[in-house]
Amino acid sequence: MKAIILAGGSGTRLWPVSRYGLPKQFIKLNGAKSLLCQTVERLAAVVPLKDIFVITNEAYLFHVHEDLKAVSPAIENNVILEPVGRNTAPAIALVLKYCLEKLKCAKDEVIFICPSDHIIQPVGKFAAYARQAEAAAKTGSIVTFGIKPDRPETGYGYIKKGVRAPGGGGVSKVEKFAEKPDLKTAEKYVAAGSYYWNSGMFAFTIGTMLAEFKAYAPEIARRLGATLAKMTADFKNMPSISIDYAVMERSKKAAVLPIDILWSDVGSWDSLPEVIKPDHDGNVKVGDVLTLDTKRTIVMGESRLVATIGLKDLIVIDTVDALLIARRGQAQRVKEVVEILKERKRKEVVEHLTIYRPWGYFVVLEEGPRYKIKRIVLKPGQKVSHQLHYHRSEHWIIVKGTARVTLGSKTMLVHENESTYVPKSTEHRLENPGRVPLEMIEVQNGEYVGEDDIVRLSDIYGRKQ
Amino acid sequence: MKAIILAGGSGTRLWPVSRYGLPKQFIKLNGAKSLLCQTVERLAAVVPLKDIFVITNEAYLFHVHEDLKAVSPAIENNVILEPVGRNTAPAIALVLKYCLEKLKCAKDEVIFICPSDHIIQPVGKFAAYARQAEAAAKTGSIVTFGIKPDRPETGYGYIKKGVRAPGGGGVSKVEKFAEKPDLKTAEKYVAAGSYYWNSGMFAFTIGTMLAEFKAYAPEIARRLGATLAKMTADFKNMPSISIDYAVMERSKKAAVLPIDILWSDVGSWDSLPEVIKPDHDGNVKVGDVLTLDTKRTIVMGESRLVATIGLKDLIVIDTVDALLIARRGQAQRVKEVVEILKERKRKEVVEHLTIYRPWGYFVVLEEGPRYKIKRIVLKPGQKVSHQLHYHRSEHWIIVKGTARVTLGSKTMLVHENESTYVPKSTEHRLENPGRVPLEMIEVQNGEYVGEDDIVRLSDIYGRKQ
Repeated sequence: MKAIILAGGSGTRLWPVSRYGLPKQFIKLNGAKSLLCQTVERLAAVVPLKDIFVITNEAYLFHVHEDLKAVSPAIENNVILEPVGRNTAPAIALVLKYCLEKLKCAKDEVIFICPSDHIIQPVGKFAAYARQAEAAAKTGSIVTFGIKPDRPETGYGYIKKGVRAPGGGGVSKVEKFAEKPDLKTAEKYVAAGSYYWNSGMFAFTIGTMLAEFKAYAPEIARRLGATLAKMTADFKNMPSISIDYAVMERSKKAAVLPIDILWSDVGSWDSLPEVIKPDHDGNVKVGDVLTLDTKRTIVMGESRLVATIGLKDLIVIDTVDALLIARRGQAQRVKEVVEILKERKRKEVVEHLTIYRPWGYFVVLEEGPRYKIKRIVLKPGQKVSHQLHYHRSEHWIIVKGTARVTLGSKTMLVHENESTYVPKSTEHRLENPGRVPLEMIEVQNGEYVGEDDIVRLSDIYGRKQ
Repeated sequence: MKAIILAGGSGTRLWPVSRYGLPKQFIKLNGAKSLLCQTVERLAAVVPLKDIFVITNEAYLFHVHEDLKAVSPAIENNVILEPVGRNTAPAIALVLKYCLEKLKCAKDEVIFICPSDHIIQPVGKFAAYARQAEAAAKTGSIVTFGIKPDRPETGYGYIKKGVRAPGGGGVSKVEKFAEKPDLKTAEKYVAAGSYYWNSGMFAFTIGTMLAEFKAYAPEIARRLGATLAKMTADFKNMPSISIDYAVMERSKKAAVLPIDILWSDVGSWDSLPEVIKPDHDGNVKVGDVLTLDTKRTIVMGESRLVATIGLKDLIVIDTVDALLIARRGQAQRVKEVVEILKERKRKEVVEHLTIYRPWGYFVVLEEGPRYKIKRIVLKPGQKVSHQLHYHRSEHWIIVKGTARVTLGSKTMLVHENESTYVPKSTEHRLENPGRVPLEMIEVQNGEYVGEDDIVRLSDIYGRKQ
């Protein structure tokens, strides 16, 4: 069985922590590891690490590499690259092609598809269910995971269990998929006992899914005839359609494995108490938080001290450059805030002050008239593009590690507590030849200090102007 | 008449904006100027600028100089310095001595005492009342200003008006001073029509107050016999007592001038809507604020974007390093928060990230292991002490203006976009010889980067180790 993690989404429902540039799967929510890292580690209890792959697109590629490497450097490159986002059906078609052509899978190999941004506990129980699903998939079913609901949740789609499926093992046919219900309908579903939350995870053999694409999504099936390279080149012409709509809701092979486990898609800040246990006052407190007479309130701090007095049923999400305060039960309206900010072209919905690059990251510490100050961290062995700026000079001060600096035709090493100066219009390159991260402070000075004043002469990551 | 502003208080009731190091009188609340600046400007409508003095202590001396200078460089040094804080009675005794000895005032000179952190509008009306008070003070009364209450406020002390005072002009004898009442009592006071809020402003002649000190505070009166220098040297032995308790509540000369004016002591964040007009939703919004479905809520932002959803009756006060969120009506509990933070020795109740020094200010942009980054602003003509550090080197990058830098026995000029390096244990001095503020970035590097690693060899501001 191959485990494939879908990590191409750009979820901003947890703004201001998740942003277009750092969507939900990459954020740390309930511990020191990103949701993607947690997903990889969970799947590692089901299949060997080498059989776990992540499908994502260019924008998130180095986040994925980082997260995979954090789990094991051996799987850093277990990435399937979508040239552009085209929803889940084309993504799964690409996965099938990749498995057949690159991994030389047989058609009876089971593929286990899993979102990258959910929380599921405990891992052992999950692994046992995954193996049940694998067994059922081998009999020709497309096995979805139906979570046993513990409340009439209106934020999830539901799956109605039908008659027992062939192959047994607790798997039933899907009678129907139901859209997100209103509260009354959700209450009926929960009372009925035959409805389950659609978790977005499913398992099938390559052969089964190829047949279903052929039957229900011929436009996608047709492209599966080409090589991986051709399919990739042509990917932008794929219809943008979800696997649910394209296949699952029509397929007669859809089955459901009811599972009873702690599961959350953390679809909004309102669902945080599902995954971080509230204290005896009903509060969830993360960070440097002081509460007086505060109940049923979620406070997620980052770097700042947060003090609360007399609050009830609130959500406070604090980041370095944006603060959200919402009444509990209204957190889904974050999307309205994100829409407004997007229209206003506010950077706070796109990026954090910490900005990730293939070579490492930088933090803008301050920007003022004619100057900008950054802390730059360059990973071992990496190099920033050979470049020049027309409008700014740069002062570099190394605070940790050793830099190899090229200025014009000269190359030199600059050590901790040493500095160098890059005059305007001078070709320069910064490298970290060492074994530990290089940290330096850059003070830019000039009539214009925008990121777009850059002429890239060469770049090992293939970036152009 | 001399106008004396009491600016030695360390009010933190508007935390996190006001802190021990920057109390309420120095913060900007309802515009571009500090409350102290606004107080000076208001008094300038009553007396010539040269007759306005501020009494404060060492800790706030340069804030006071800055604020006075902002109004007029001519009065920068109109400061009476309390060696230590000993509450208002000793402060007023010191004022009397200062007026007699330094300003050569006669005993029939009227002294107008005024807190530094209140908001009063409009200025013209205030000036007319102040002149009425002056006239009444000349007849021997100690004239308090009683604000006509527009609500049963429980946060203020009240003054009960008695029979008409000699000298007339709308001034009555004080029948009694009443402590902060409970709501029921406050309602009675307002209904009675003869009770006024005690505004903390009062006017008297030097002779009157000397006599009252003699009658009711002999321990203070005795010290008034010495010279200003002796009285100052002995100031720490003064009893710490308020003028209200020591004199006003006992004096038979206490009078009240009822005044009908917009007045607020901005005693807590709850009172902010008294001085900043709420919008049609009842919200007060300062800074970069986006509200959805939010009513009767105060949001004061500073540098960050603040988004709110579905809030009602809340107070959100956001600063760079501390955030307060409180239910309206509970803002007086900020003092509990401040107490807890003080016990925990948290810097967030003492200083802001921007720290003021006699020569200018600095902002800590970031501090990490083995490094600290500051932006330093040095005022024209100022110089930082001649100093050295045993544990850190410093890289200085000038981003605006020109610096005169002394390193060991060498002195040089460093210009915008130039840098210099101060090695560990090297004597150095930084000066701004120019006409515009000098702005520079300092990157400290070393095994210890605490502020206390400093050996001051000489200092024009008289600071020692």
